[in-house]
Amino acid sequence: MLYTSEALQQLIEEFAQLPGIGTKSAQRLALYVLKRPREEVVKMANALVSVKDRIKYCSSCWNITDVDPCIICCSPKREHEVICVVEEPNDVLALERTNEYRGLYHVLGGSLSPLDGIGPEDIKVRELLARVNGKVKEVILAMNPNVEGEATTIYLTRLLKPLGVKVTRIARGIPVGGDLEFADDATLTRALEGREIL
Amino acid sequence: MLYTSEALQQLIEEFAQLPGIGTKSAQRLALYVLKRPREEVVKMANALVSVKDRIKYCSSCWNITDVDPCIICCSPKREHEVICVVEEPNDVLALERTNEYRGLYHVLGGSLSPLDGIGPEDIKVRELLARVNGKVKEVILAMNPNVEGEATTIYLTRLLKPLGVKVTRIARGIPVGGDLEFADDATLTRALEGREIL
Repeated sequence: MLYTSEALQQLIEEFAQLPGIGTKSAQRLALYVLKRPREEVVKMANALVSVKDRIKYCSSCWNITDVDPCIICCSPKREHEVICVVEEPNDVLALERTNEYRGLYHVLGGSLSPLDGIGPEDIKVRELLARVNGKVKEVILAMNPNVEGEATTIYLTRLLKPLGVKVTRIARGIPVGGDLEFADDATLTRALEGREIL
Repeated sequence: MLYTSEALQQLIEEFAQLPGIGTKSAQRLALYVLKRPREEVVKMANALVSVKDRIKYCSSCWNITDVDPCIICCSPKREHEVICVVEEPNDVLALERTNEYRGLYHVLGGSLSPLDGIGPEDIKVRELLARVNGKVKEVILAMNPNVEGEATTIYLTRLLKPLGVKVTRIARGIPVGGDLEFADDATLTRALEGREIL
């Protein structure tokens, strides 16, 4: 198709590369950008580059941060005896959104996936084991509920249990607002297995 | 909620301001940006600012363009005797996507909306009338099918007809792939009224 502006075409192509954004959405976003004041667009452009320039990894939990160690690892308000292990930084964001969890995190940077050639040395397993010294009381495994996440959970449980730490995993079951009728067999099985005493 | 990085938080807020992008999508986009190589992110940032710096309006059709007059208005391959009147530049993109229309465009920059204080002098009506001289054979009105678009269509028809030009409007009816059962009354009425002879 024909664009009357090369600059617009380039921006549309850039937007269309983002996950979950197709050509139509990209067009809408680009035209929205065109309507905004120049200083706001410059601010957005600077925010993009600044993310690449300012963000590093926390040397303790391997989450993304501006300062090392990160503000979660440094916070006196958090429980330093509990570590929640997740795959990616966006999992930390998801858990933080709940405003429920008060412990620390450990970001593996992926999950075990032999088919993709990702072994224990490719994710931050050694760093996790080094953190689990006498002071840590509980390690919560919060992997994604898929094959790779499952494998990672089993692998980490085997390594962590001998260290004398309490190892737990987050519950799998019917999502809140979900419908029993439409839940798949595996989820229902997990929901039954993980039933709570009332 | 708590972000461990101010730079990331800023980028998420910037993304969340875009239309159709909520906080969750913005987080996903920002983390995607973080994973991309720096030079690609810089390219995207430049594309953003360049859209604001390079794009102007075509002095003939008022569409967005890098060069004035725009490549559609200049193209010898297009039919210069047909002008399709649309509300916004994204309507031009939508029509160009079809690869069917070969005439020129005229972008009004909005539609008549007395409630919002938008009158004929706020959109490019005068400029349209100036273009309709002896050479233009047909003016196709392609306003959005809502109250404002309807008012604009009626208003423009009244102004254009005395100039001796053929004035048409795009068909309203059942969308392709749509379901008769779920079509609203107004759409069905228009579809009946606009029925074609086979």
